Amino acid sequence: MAARMNPDLRKERENASFDPEKITTFLWGGKERVQRKRELEFLALNDPDYQHEDLNFMSREQQYETQLKKGILMVTKMKELKIPDEDQLFYTSAVLVSDVHPMMVHTRMFLPTLYGQATEEQKDKWLKLAENYAIVGTYAQTEIGHGTFVRGLETTATYDPKTQEFILNTPTLSASKWWPGGMGKTSNYVVLMAQLYIHSKPYGVHSFMLQIRSLEDHKPLPGVTVGDIGPKFGYDVMDNGFLALNNVRIPRENMLMKHSRVEPDGTYVKPPSTKLAYGTMVQVRANIVMYSGVVLAKAVTIATRYSCVRRQSEMKPGHPEPQVLDYVTQQYKLFPYLAAAYAFWLTGQTMMSVYTTSSSQISKGDISVLPELHALSAGLKALSSAAANVGMEKCRLACGGHGYSHASGLPRLYTNMTPASTAEGEHVVLMLQTARYLMKSYNQSLQGEKLAGSVAYLSGVQLVPAAGRTRNMLDLGVLCDAYRHRAGRLVHEAAAQLRSELQAGKDQADAWNATSVDLVKAATAHSQYFVVKNFAERLTDSTLDSSISDVLTRLCQLHALHGLVTNSGDFLEDGYLTGTDIRQARRHINALMAKLRPDAVALVDAFDFPDGILNSVLGRYDGNVYEHLLEWAKASPLNKTDVHQSYHKYLKPFLEANRAKL
Amino acid sequence: MAARMNPDLRKERENASFDPEKITTFLWGGKERVQRKRELEFLALNDPDYQHEDLNFMSREQQYETQLKKGILMVTKMKELKIPDEDQLFYTSAVLVSDVHPMMVHTRMFLPTLYGQATEEQKDKWLKLAENYAIVGTYAQTEIGHGTFVRGLETTATYDPKTQEFILNTPTLSASKWWPGGMGKTSNYVVLMAQLYIHSKPYGVHSFMLQIRSLEDHKPLPGVTVGDIGPKFGYDVMDNGFLALNNVRIPRENMLMKHSRVEPDGTYVKPPSTKLAYGTMVQVRANIVMYSGVVLAKAVTIATRYSCVRRQSEMKPGHPEPQVLDYVTQQYKLFPYLAAAYAFWLTGQTMMSVYTTSSSQISKGDISVLPELHALSAGLKALSSAAANVGMEKCRLACGGHGYSHASGLPRLYTNMTPASTAEGEHVVLMLQTARYLMKSYNQSLQGEKLAGSVAYLSGVQLVPAAGRTRNMLDLGVLCDAYRHRAGRLVHEAAAQLRSELQAGKDQADAWNATSVDLVKAATAHSQYFVVKNFAERLTDSTLDSSISDVLTRLCQLHALHGLVTNSGDFLEDGYLTGTDIRQARRHINALMAKLRPDAVALVDAFDFPDGILNSVLGRYDGNVYEHLLEWAKASPLNKTDVHQSYHKYLKPFLEANRAKL
Repeated sequence: MAARMNPDLRKERENASFDPEKITTFLWGGKERVQRKRELEFLALNDPDYQHEDLNFMSREQQYETQLKKGILMVTKMKELKIPDEDQLFYTSAVLVSDVHPMMVHTRMFLPTLYGQATEEQKDKWLKLAENYAIVGTYAQTEIGHGTFVRGLETTATYDPKTQEFILNTPTLSASKWWPGGMGKTSNYVVLMAQLYIHSKPYGVHSFMLQIRSLEDHKPLPGVTVGDIGPKFGYDVMDNGFLALNNVRIPRENMLMKHSRVEPDGTYVKPPSTKLAYGTMVQVRANIVMYSGVVLAKAVTIATRYSCVRRQSEMKPGHPEPQVLDYVTQQYKLFPYLAAAYAFWLTGQTMMSVYTTSSSQISKGDISVLPELHALSAGLKALSSAAANVGMEKCRLACGGHGYSHASGLPRLYTNMTPASTAEGEHVVLMLQTARYLMKSYNQSLQGEKLAGSVAYLSGVQLVPAAGRTRNMLDLGVLCDAYRHRAGRLVHEAAAQLRSELQAGKDQADAWNATSVDLVKAATAHSQYFVVKNFAERLTDSTLDSSISDVLTRLCQLHALHGLVTNSGDFLEDGYLTGTDIRQARRHINALMAKLRPDAVALVDAFDFPDGILNSVLGRYDGNVYEHLLEWAKASPLNKTDVHQSYHKYLKPFLEANRAKL
Repeated sequence: MAARMNPDLRKERENASFDPEKITTFLWGGKERVQRKRELEFLALNDPDYQHEDLNFMSREQQYETQLKKGILMVTKMKELKIPDEDQLFYTSAVLVSDVHPMMVHTRMFLPTLYGQATEEQKDKWLKLAENYAIVGTYAQTEIGHGTFVRGLETTATYDPKTQEFILNTPTLSASKWWPGGMGKTSNYVVLMAQLYIHSKPYGVHSFMLQIRSLEDHKPLPGVTVGDIGPKFGYDVMDNGFLALNNVRIPRENMLMKHSRVEPDGTYVKPPSTKLAYGTMVQVRANIVMYSGVVLAKAVTIATRYSCVRRQSEMKPGHPEPQVLDYVTQQYKLFPYLAAAYAFWLTGQTMMSVYTTSSSQISKGDISVLPELHALSAGLKALSSAAANVGMEKCRLACGGHGYSHASGLPRLYTNMTPASTAEGEHVVLMLQTARYLMKSYNQSLQGEKLAGSVAYLSGVQLVPAAGRTRNMLDLGVLCDAYRHRAGRLVHEAAAQLRSELQAGKDQADAWNATSVDLVKAATAHSQYFVVKNFAERLTDSTLDSSISDVLTRLCQLHALHGLVTNSGDFLEDGYLTGTDIRQARRHINALMAKLRPDAVALVDAFDFPDGILNSVLGRYDGNVYEHLLEWAKASPLNKTDVHQSYHKYLKPFLEANRAKL
């Protein structure tokens, strides 16, 4: 491969100031993990059973079928290979690239729900079937008219003590289940979330095991209407489904009863605590933070390599066309997202480890950490997925016309990632959950309570800035202080605004609503402070040698400074920073970009995505972009014939008739 | 229809403070234009010949074929109907909805190039054929390795005086033509842009008529390799193509020679002026400004109507779920883009009329207006397409999960619109062209020259703000002043930075590159000032009655204030505005949103997009969203059978084998 490497990319790699392998080791958690990752990636990427033509060349039905076949193969092979849990993502990422497979929710939601909510008898009955894929299930919660707000679900499970059965209904059109992955065509079971009614009295949302398709011929069972919700922006391979139920009866034992129970006579037995379900949600959100860093890293890898291969325009008369990455404007498009990819990657790791530590406490019954964990994960999930969402499109646009081609891999990466902004908690909803915790904590601190964890700084919010100070805007301590001050001030101001709305006579709900834009702003600033501080703290890792910590420090500075100049009003508004500080920050950004320029390719190489996982002609490691762009195009369906059938059907008669008239 | 209207939407319409028809009249240029528009839309939308299943249900090949058929029909019917030029867009927009057809470039580029660059004899030869679609052509400029920078093209046309022919070649892989719409499968002719060589001497890029496919059987002619460039993010219906040429000979007469000529003996005759081609480019860019307003208006229409139909969560305990648009955060997501849609719509109209006025001057030989026209259209194209790009995705995300479905219409609207940010001049490239003009103008003003047109304000840049003033931040005069001051200051600072880079010893090119981020910032501020000022000026239209000018004034205030708080640092940095001003601006935004809330649906109704053109289940005028979402899903291909064939091929054997093992 090296022999045929694009000479520009080769030069970039030769001139880097550090060995990317060292950063790879840092990012992936040590040499052994990197080795294991590469082994499993190699295994998956070189397995001929997983090969197929580009999904982008297929109709949606073909994509579904291809990915179902691959998912089945993958599940089977992973079992044969006995890949331990903590390594499975290495293998599945390489098999599925940036896509999923139709049985994904079986693993991600159906099985975990059984583990968490089924009694021992229920586990005996279903878990073996589910773990061994004798049945395939999904998780049916959202409805066509109801999303984030679980209490608003309309599907009912009415207990009939005579037959000891639940009668399941989606009583209105808006109650139809909508979105569950794999429900459209694949699953024969669902965990159904429904409003429990006993003797006409509502008991809130509970979960029920429901078979929806025959195990004989896969046809929908009586009373069940089920199908695919139709094509979407992305996730072509997934049969997200709808489900309507008309008086479907299931035995009493099909309610998942680990936490709450319905006795044969209809007596309802309450769960001990309602907070236990939080744990899974936090894990899902922590995963999204990590995933946001990873997809942003992929997009930046593609755009950075391509920007070194691509030559464009004339910087100086008579000189050859420069590499696009030599334009400062191109650096300004990409380097902030390169830095953000590192920032969120490291935030994701921290979030995962906070989750692991906390969940062992929670499993011991100590749920005191939950509010902090929940608030932190909500804000970081919202912040990181939004940043990835915007950043991926910036990377695509930075690739000019070719970024628009599916050959770039960027459109598909985007359309498969963008749901992360909405799913598992919509952006604003999550930010407001974080804000609620911030308001509570801030009020506690005003009453003299000492705060801990991510909100500890709210105890000491200083509102009067020291004006006229001279600052070194490259100093990470100065930058962290600035972010802390801004977050503290915005929390204070949102709290003051909320108070003033209440004092003006609004009730709690209206006052909250009227303040919500400021609350989102405060929660965003709080989350950004966490990300910047975490990045800076990770740089103190003693295993980093100086060549690595130098370049990572530049990324951290760039990340902090870019956020600062982008939101400069927040820092200037109360005079905490001065116009001189902001101008200094802008100059530092230019200087940092110039210093990062020679290391850009090494910094994306360090993410260590093999070509098979990037799946991008523009992002190829060897940089041989144009020849593979042409090769890819030639393989696409419209080029199977020189003359398309539509010529004979439509174009020929049209042209000939027009010629005859002349 | 009214009888079945969703009650929430009905209430919205009943409670509006004005009659939307009045704004429709204002936006579309008078009652007669509105009537004509509706007639032609009705004609197209109710023509059974144009009906087909949703393009999103089809493979790309089927989409291409469907749209080719429709394009042919449309061309034929428009001729029969004798629709005058100025009305054609009403008809074609309704036939094509948010898509194009494979012969689009024939009308948009191939024919105009012949009009503009062919001699009278050449027109006699080709124009009749082209106008009557006896031949179908496209415009082949960009190459796989060369985009915006035309001088970098590699395709050659070498004159052979012996045979009086040009020999055409794409001498390298990166010289292959890439992107021309309709070239992949449809066109049999192209206008080819190539480097002219005579006796080994280069004469720059010229255009040549080239037949690429046989008129008999549509097969590529000898020496011609042509095909489709493969699937893209959007534009599925368009066969963007590649083209490689190997010693293809064309007669001397095939060079388009209106402006420059090659004599039989190889003598080259220069064109009188090289600036004439600018006109078309300005028109294309003015069109994009208008188009940006229109697509943003479509997206906002969909998201606003849906946000009134959608009910979600619990604002107050025990109360019913509120309309999503009652959340202030939802208003903050949508209303700034509602205001932006109006702002760019009105900017587009102004830009078109400036173009029309200027082009009559240009056609009289007065090209003095060109630099201003060019700079203005470049910056506004970049600004508006970027705003539409971001805004459309914000609207999609504001529709939650359902926005992600193709039923919403938003993904397709976005993927078909987003190329406008890159095509016809990439964002940064255009902003830097505007910046170049600003630098030149500013330096002229420093030397005492009086500036006119959009840069007149640069003559009086006041750098020392009057501190401590009390301002009414709702006053449009105050807001325009603030935008003017910011633009002037940023132009001044970019100029100073450029000077200081030069003084530090950089050459012109390096200094420009080092300052380019500041230059883009200045050009953006300049363009934003123009948009805000134009909006405010249009409100003085004496035909507007007060109910209309009241609500439009609110939109204008919101647009200006939102831009101001989003970029508050720019206004605070030099102390022009104070923290108090910014806080006041934020309060005004909240108050304006509350005032606009009851008028939101009427404001989007006023854009007057019929359902057939919006093509969105979420944006339906009658608001009956959920039933049509289900109906749409049921019609999609995966639901043609209850049990998909993949069950028998893959899932059944897998499940049965697993069951057998238990």
